[in-house]
Amino acid sequence: MSMTPEQQAEIEHARAQSTNTRRPSVGPLEDILYQAVPLLDHGFVRVIDYMGDDSAVVQAARVSYGRGTKKVSEDKALIAYLMRHRHSTPFEMCEIKFHVKLPIFVARQWIRHRTANVNEISGRYSILDKEFYVPAPENLAAQSVINRQGRGHVLEGEEAARVLGLLRDDAERAYAHYGEMLNEDEAGQVLDPERQGLARELARMNLSLNYYTQWYWKTDLHNFMNFLSLRADAHAQWEIRVYAEAMLDMLDRWVPHTAAAFRQYRLGCATLSAAGLAVVKRMLAGETVAQEDSGLGKREWGELMAVLGRE
Amino acid sequence: MSMTPEQQAEIEHARAQSTNTRRPSVGPLEDILYQAVPLLDHGFVRVIDYMGDDSAVVQAARVSYGRGTKKVSEDKALIAYLMRHRHSTPFEMCEIKFHVKLPIFVARQWIRHRTANVNEISGRYSILDKEFYVPAPENLAAQSVINRQGRGHVLEGEEAARVLGLLRDDAERAYAHYGEMLNEDEAGQVLDPERQGLARELARMNLSLNYYTQWYWKTDLHNFMNFLSLRADAHAQWEIRVYAEAMLDMLDRWVPHTAAAFRQYRLGCATLSAAGLAVVKRMLAGETVAQEDSGLGKREWGELMAVLGRE
Amino acid sequence: MSMTPEQQAEIEHARAQSTNTRRPSVGPLEDILYQAVPLLDHGFVRVIDYMGDDSAVVQAARVSYGRGTKKVSEDKALIAYLMRHRHSTPFEMCEIKFHVKLPIFVARQWIRHRTANVNEISGRYSILDKEFYVPAPENLAAQSVINRQGRGHVLEGEEAARVLGLLRDDAERAYAHYGEMLNEDEAGQVLDPERQGLARELARMNLSLNYYTQWYWKTDLHNFMNFLSLRADAHAQWEIRVYAEAMLDMLDRWVPHTAAAFRQYRLGCATLSAAGLAVVKRMLAGETVAQEDSGLGKREWGELMAVLGRE
Amino acid sequence: MSMTPEQQAEIEHARAQSTNTRRPSVGPLEDILYQAVPLLDHGFVRVIDYMGDDSAVVQAARVSYGRGTKKVSEDKALIAYLMRHRHSTPFEMCEIKFHVKLPIFVARQWIRHRTANVNEISGRYSILDKEFYVPAPENLAAQSVINRQGRGHVLEGEEAARVLGLLRDDAERAYAHYGEMLNEDEAGQVLDPERQGLARELARMNLSLNYYTQWYWKTDLHNFMNFLSLRADAHAQWEIRVYAEAMLDMLDRWVPHTAAAFRQYRLGCATLSAAGLAVVKRMLAGETVAQEDSGLGKREWGELMAVLGRE
Repeated sequence: MSMTPEQQAEIEHARAQSTNTRRPSVGPLEDILYQAVPLLDHGFVRVIDYMGDDSAVVQAARVSYGRGTKKVSEDKALIAYLMRHRHSTPFEMCEIKFHVKLPIFVARQWIRHRTANVNEISGRYSILDKEFYVPAPENLAAQSVINRQGRGHVLEGEEAARVLGLLRDDAERAYAHYGEMLNEDEAGQVLDPERQGLARELARMNLSLNYYTQWYWKTDLHNFMNFLSLRADAHAQWEIRVYAEAMLDMLDRWVPHTAAAFRQYRLGCATLSAAGLAVVKRMLAGETVAQEDSGLGKREWGELMAVLGRE
Repeated sequence: MSMTPEQQAEIEHARAQSTNTRRPSVGPLEDILYQAVPLLDHGFVRVIDYMGDDSAVVQAARVSYGRGTKKVSEDKALIAYLMRHRHSTPFEMCEIKFHVKLPIFVARQWIRHRTANVNEISGRYSILDKEFYVPAPENLAAQSVINRQGRGHVLEGEEAARVLGLLRDDAERAYAHYGEMLNEDEAGQVLDPERQGLARELARMNLSLNYYTQWYWKTDLHNFMNFLSLRADAHAQWEIRVYAEAMLDMLDRWVPHTAAAFRQYRLGCATLSAAGLAVVKRMLAGETVAQEDSGLGKREWGELMAVLGRE
Repeated sequence: MSMTPEQQAEIEHARAQSTNTRRPSVGPLEDILYQAVPLLDHGFVRVIDYMGDDSAVVQAARVSYGRGTKKVSEDKALIAYLMRHRHSTPFEMCEIKFHVKLPIFVARQWIRHRTANVNEISGRYSILDKEFYVPAPENLAAQSVINRQGRGHVLEGEEAARVLGLLRDDAERAYAHYGEMLNEDEAGQVLDPERQGLARELARMNLSLNYYTQWYWKTDLHNFMNFLSLRADAHAQWEIRVYAEAMLDMLDRWVPHTAAAFRQYRLGCATLSAAGLAVVKRMLAGETVAQEDSGLGKREWGELMAVLGRE
Repeated sequence: MSMTPEQQAEIEHARAQSTNTRRPSVGPLEDILYQAVPLLDHGFVRVIDYMGDDSAVVQAARVSYGRGTKKVSEDKALIAYLMRHRHSTPFEMCEIKFHVKLPIFVARQWIRHRTANVNEISGRYSILDKEFYVPAPENLAAQSVINRQGRGHVLEGEEAARVLGLLRDDAERAYAHYGEMLNEDEAGQVLDPERQGLARELARMNLSLNYYTQWYWKTDLHNFMNFLSLRADAHAQWEIRVYAEAMLDMLDRWVPHTAAAFRQYRLGCATLSAAGLAVVKRMLAGETVAQEDSGLGKREWGELMAVLGRE
């Protein structure tokens, strides 16, 4: 995580503030409010605001006049019921806002979640920082040979060294030329008074997709869980998954009952197709079922056996 | 406003809570938090949660590490600039949640604003309260003769009395029959043990559109202002306008700089068409322009003259 | 279905038109284009436009230059794969538009699907038709005693007759008074020249929730399937389910491969929670599992056994 | 525009198809259907499907049974009325789908329009083509000295040559190293059988933001016009504006009445703030108004004078 002392001081200053509020507050989330969790080589995610808690879900489901909570056990059971039956609107009643620093190629995946609010730093207006992502050696994965969209073994030895060198050199060169085209250094000082400098909105196109960007990203609890279920998943690219996993910890702090139900009924759930369910029923009735007489294709049969732990 | 003592006590209980938070709080909005503002004969609106303040808009525009505010005058100018140039995303970074009690025919207009989150009490699940809207005599408007979608003069005398009587009698009868079909009273007590009672999801269809419903409604600051600009407008039906006007006061309390810019650049603004602008330029150049040689139709000419105060 | 001869003629006129297009057309859907399928006592649904077909899903997934289709079997397998892995964006590339006539209480459930476009007739502007829903005797369900949000047995004999009579009488009276307040008949003729007539936007509030309204409703294929999965479900109120079921037939005509995958992986699927999956694994391993040692609550255990057909 | 003969043939094949449909067709749009309009050095935009026409707007506003059109002049006036009064829902009833090839930095601006459907080619799955944007010399603008987010004069001579050289060389080198890291050529042939090759999802991060991507992009007519009003505007970056301008021509072909109203009431309109309107009224009353006594700041005064053509 690259943060200037000034930025660190601004965060500490914000953390030192305290006001009274009639709104519900969540202690474990307040504990880490504004603090940046470092991710990848220069990235981070930090919670910068939130609205509501587990009780707010319960209140919305009941359209209550007051806090609307009953016994903790009843509230917890109601949240589990809502999650199990995909009653999503009560979860939309909580909101959370993050400040995220992330490589552009990760940002391009992230932005596909449309039900969110975003403010990103603008390369038309600002000079971008010289910060780019280079994978750690243990994350330098080869292309999967069985899955066109995935990773295989980790590159090693000379090939790994060569890749890391190329990534680093090309990013360095791109930034040097970005500055030269701008005719400005990072602090905005003109380099050569004889030249005009290319417009920022044009010069930025020379930067590569591993350069970092930053944004404020705000969403409701329901859509936050949709994001997590897709991006904390094993099929997600590792570089976005580390963000989702850090945010899953934040979910635990913020709304522990909702987070528990989310892990039980969303993250850990298994969906059986109509044909897959028929196979399970036959197996439960004592029948030995083979792929050939299952009504499933090979790929789907493999997926089902994996889910049932019978590989 | 019809509120039971229990509901009033729940609100008072919520208002009496206070916690510390590192989040920004807004005093003038905290002052009225949870309190119901009575509207129409049985309705209300109350703020039940909020996230962010004027500074949050500024921080988002700057993607700041800390509170990101500069001098108050600079922040105010930035908010005005964002509003004037319709840069909407920074305003999406604040969120507000209301509890609203409103007649069903008003709810049907309100729900058309899709970029919001809603939890409504369910007539499938609950027995609805016996509360219906009857206009005050001064709001008993006749159909406009010049505008098919609008109101004219106020009905008076016998005709007014007749209308009020019909509305009241029909709503009373509908509710009595609702209870009879349900075979339950308002408290859920069975009326006649010999009968089964019609399903709630069916019986409710006998109620009229002036019956009250309730919901939690949450939206971001940008979409809140879109709602206000449409519903606090003179063309909106009076019964929804009273809600919008009460919520405009809440906007003033919550984000005063944003509210000022909203009144200046949205509520109070005038939009001239290309042809309308051409007319204004000719007039400013000293020319006398008549509808016939203006390039505008009669209706649009009338609208332009009204905007310019030259009727 | 109440349709005037003029309306019927307009539909027949539209059906008689034919033009050439370079766009893909879907014969089985063209066959019923514009035709109204009667539902309930006065309602209907009809397709009035569509864009795309099964191939459009495939093309979008492949970002093709041409029709992008390979062998039918490959296209079908790709659609099944997309559905199974919830890759929703290719399904968003098709669009369909309906004209629906439906009771207001059904419309109030329907409108909760926000990712759609809607144009509804306006009671501020028009006089509403005298058409209200009264359930057929076989749909006059009692309140469920085991499920607060549901139906039990059908009402019979005197109680049924009484309910039908009340619904009919109250709706008739409401409409008569609506006309009296308006001082207009259905054709817009003034009744009493001595009176002004109440504004339409106010008079309509006397109508009950079983009155019919109409709208144009447009959505993409992905959100259409979301609508169907919720509203063609056994938990949906019967009166909206009949619409969803009629529209499911239209889905079959429009995009048969997508519809088949939808039935296999969405409508007919079963979702097991983490704990439910653990139970299934233990049972498949030959263990006898009881609710008490399953880690599931009674309700959830019952739901799981129902899914597995082991009640 | 870089298109292979195979891609060109696919387009020609699609254009040669013709079917009958009961749906409305739009001749001038059919004429260019599927055809790519070349933009920038390798980009294009082409319409690949559409739904509805000007009449569909009118029908939706009237919730018609048939085509619902009256005299052309009445339909045109209704469309102008809807546009003028920002009644947006009838315009949502038409839909259009594009295939776009565009530099990644343009795609990153474009994707911010959330009310649209998108399918983009995936760099996790596919090897990206070797195509990058280099501005034509006449578009090589210097940074504006008066507007931090904008362009000034065009770079010339040696500085221009140097910039073009850097952009070209860096993009060439990035792609060469991309291939080397992948250990594959553009056709997917393994380069060195001794090496594994880096995963595609990682190697792509070495490409710069001027590389081209492609997507299918679909939106409704209302949101299409929102896109055009922001991106065909003088404040938009030139490289996205050329796309918007080409799509504005497509709007003219598709819905000529709507397009005319859009130009009159949206593109060509002027919005005056409350204070700006007050200034105009004073000027129309014959008063000479100066910035100092206008109630406007210098910047806003300048903007108002520019709108009124009085600079």
